[in-house]
Amino acid sequence: MKSKTASSGISRRALVSTIAALPVLSGTLFSTSASAQTATAGDPLPSWNDGASKQSIVNFVNAVTRAGSPDFVPVPERIATFDNDGTLWTEHPMYVQLVFALDRVKALAPQHPEWKDKQPFKAVLEGDMKTLADSGEHGLLELMMATHAGMTSDEFSKIVTDWFATARDQRFKRPYTELVYQPMLELLAYLRANGFKTFIVSGGGIEFMRPWSERVYGIPPEQVVGSSIKTRFEMRQGRPELFRLPEVNFIDDKAGKPVGINEFIGRRPIAAFGNSDGDLEMLQWTTMSGGVRLGLIVHHTDAEREYAYDRDTSFGRLDKALDAAAINKWTVVDMKKDWKVIFPSER
Amino acid sequence: MKSKTASSGISRRALVSTIAALPVLSGTLFSTSASAQTATAGDPLPSWNDGASKQSIVNFVNAVTRAGSPDFVPVPERIATFDNDGTLWTEHPMYVQLVFALDRVKALAPQHPEWKDKQPFKAVLEGDMKTLADSGEHGLLELMMATHAGMTSDEFSKIVTDWFATARDQRFKRPYTELVYQPMLELLAYLRANGFKTFIVSGGGIEFMRPWSERVYGIPPEQVVGSSIKTRFEMRQGRPELFRLPEVNFIDDKAGKPVGINEFIGRRPIAAFGNSDGDLEMLQWTTMSGGVRLGLIVHHTDAEREYAYDRDTSFGRLDKALDAAAINKWTVVDMKKDWKVIFPSER
Repeated sequence: MKSKTASSGISRRALVSTIAALPVLSGTLFSTSASAQTATAGDPLPSWNDGASKQSIVNFVNAVTRAGSPDFVPVPERIATFDNDGTLWTEHPMYVQLVFALDRVKALAPQHPEWKDKQPFKAVLEGDMKTLADSGEHGLLELMMATHAGMTSDEFSKIVTDWFATARDQRFKRPYTELVYQPMLELLAYLRANGFKTFIVSGGGIEFMRPWSERVYGIPPEQVVGSSIKTRFEMRQGRPELFRLPEVNFIDDKAGKPVGINEFIGRRPIAAFGNSDGDLEMLQWTTMSGGVRLGLIVHHTDAEREYAYDRDTSFGRLDKALDAAAINKWTVVDMKKDWKVIFPSER
Repeated sequence: MKSKTASSGISRRALVSTIAALPVLSGTLFSTSASAQTATAGDPLPSWNDGASKQSIVNFVNAVTRAGSPDFVPVPERIATFDNDGTLWTEHPMYVQLVFALDRVKALAPQHPEWKDKQPFKAVLEGDMKTLADSGEHGLLELMMATHAGMTSDEFSKIVTDWFATARDQRFKRPYTELVYQPMLELLAYLRANGFKTFIVSGGGIEFMRPWSERVYGIPPEQVVGSSIKTRFEMRQGRPELFRLPEVNFIDDKAGKPVGINEFIGRRPIAAFGNSDGDLEMLQWTTMSGGVRLGLIVHHTDAEREYAYDRDTSFGRLDKALDAAAINKWTVVDMKKDWKVIFPSER
């Protein structure tokens, strides 16, 4: 199974994003309640500049929530799915989960003297990112398994939590959970205030996100869909344990996103939010179903306040999905123009 | 992958239960709101006779919901998981999903003239249950794939819905969705009224249960965990579709139940409800975690009003889990003694 998995057509994008899924649990500026505070009186989206993007969101919500309207959608069917990396928080210059994996290799190196001479670990320990990138899919998979498997689920959750408590983004000098997008927090709260159930549907690791998704986004663990490795239940010394195995279970990216949505949620969303080609199929599945639907893409256009990238990036690439947006009338958010602030700290 | 799956150690119990997972959608006596109507004033569990079983449930709920108590559990962590077959509805003399599969073979037979001479289809068409049983795991898997795969998810949902509208249990002459246990409907409502989020965690097929779980149990599709086959996303003639493939994805039974709980819910339950050895690991995972927890087993002791079976049945066997109940102080419900009524129609 392992060799099958490693040799199958898992894209590097997916692997990198899978490698990259753990949580930040340190104290931050925003909490679950904070993310809801903007959804009450007045403008529910104060960090959004007036314009076509903001208007398309408000129009959609009004249409599906107006009783008696032909576009009305009952509350239980108001499902909204959000990609995470690049849609709800910063993914550049490297997926947060990949930063975590590299840090874990360094932390575990003393127990693995053989890594000094073994790629891709050698490259990580020497900070040789070029060689690491050249190790390709197989190298990244090895890195992921060495750092994400071989412990219980509870142990992994604690490792993730502890890491987020001290890890800081190099450019912004902040915990990663503070590098979430304030306008998207407002959007999450606005949708929930209108009866929507909000889900994360991310290529990132499901157990990397769950320890902090509720605190940061107001999204509880059971509403997080993501990539996963297999686990095995075992009674050990009279205690039930779930062990994380070095074997891919599910890659929740590209065509895997509708599959994951159907398996975990069992309903078709009426709104979906992404930022890259990895979200194309989720946006198609959501919006091409008849009825008034909302597809939205966060276009990273602000190199000064965050980053600017689309068709030419090696990951988080926005190319096919940008073309599809024009055809399907999806909202394309121009980060620079549409967002008054990027991060909660700017408020 | 197919051959690997067929030859791996999937138990017959699991296969039968997987085969057996579709919903009843006809009009019934009970609705979502009906299932909540008993949870208000007065006795929240009117169909339960006073005694140790009922008391253990009430004591548990009081302990974990009393603010300031050392046993208090915050609302978001009040997760309760329920097996379906034999725990929430009747599973004898045959899993409902297996009845569905047999009916589907008969319905599809005209399009498959080769089935007349091919086992296990021949046995099904001739009503030869002995030969069908002798076909074992492999035969049941073939049956499942022939009836559950080869269509889109939407199409399958409609097939399930249409089947439940007309199918009737032979003994009770009622739609299968009316053969749910009234005391368990009250228990679901009682837990929800006390801040619990209720989930189904069944060996049955996830897409067999979702079309009716909300109407019958008040449990929405996104809170149903079950066995599944793989699906593939495809754009066909410009429409996004999810195709059901003849390949097992996940068997949510026995040691698979804690795995499914962790993957789908991402939190450890504090209460779990089952009726067979297929629920043993879920009960262990739930109750052996420190803190006040509730494990409960429905023991089928009432041959007159429903069925009586435990250690000697070929499926729904309650043997190891009954021994474990005594050791772990799980509540064992004596259906005959503890339940005033079995089905909603008796009220």
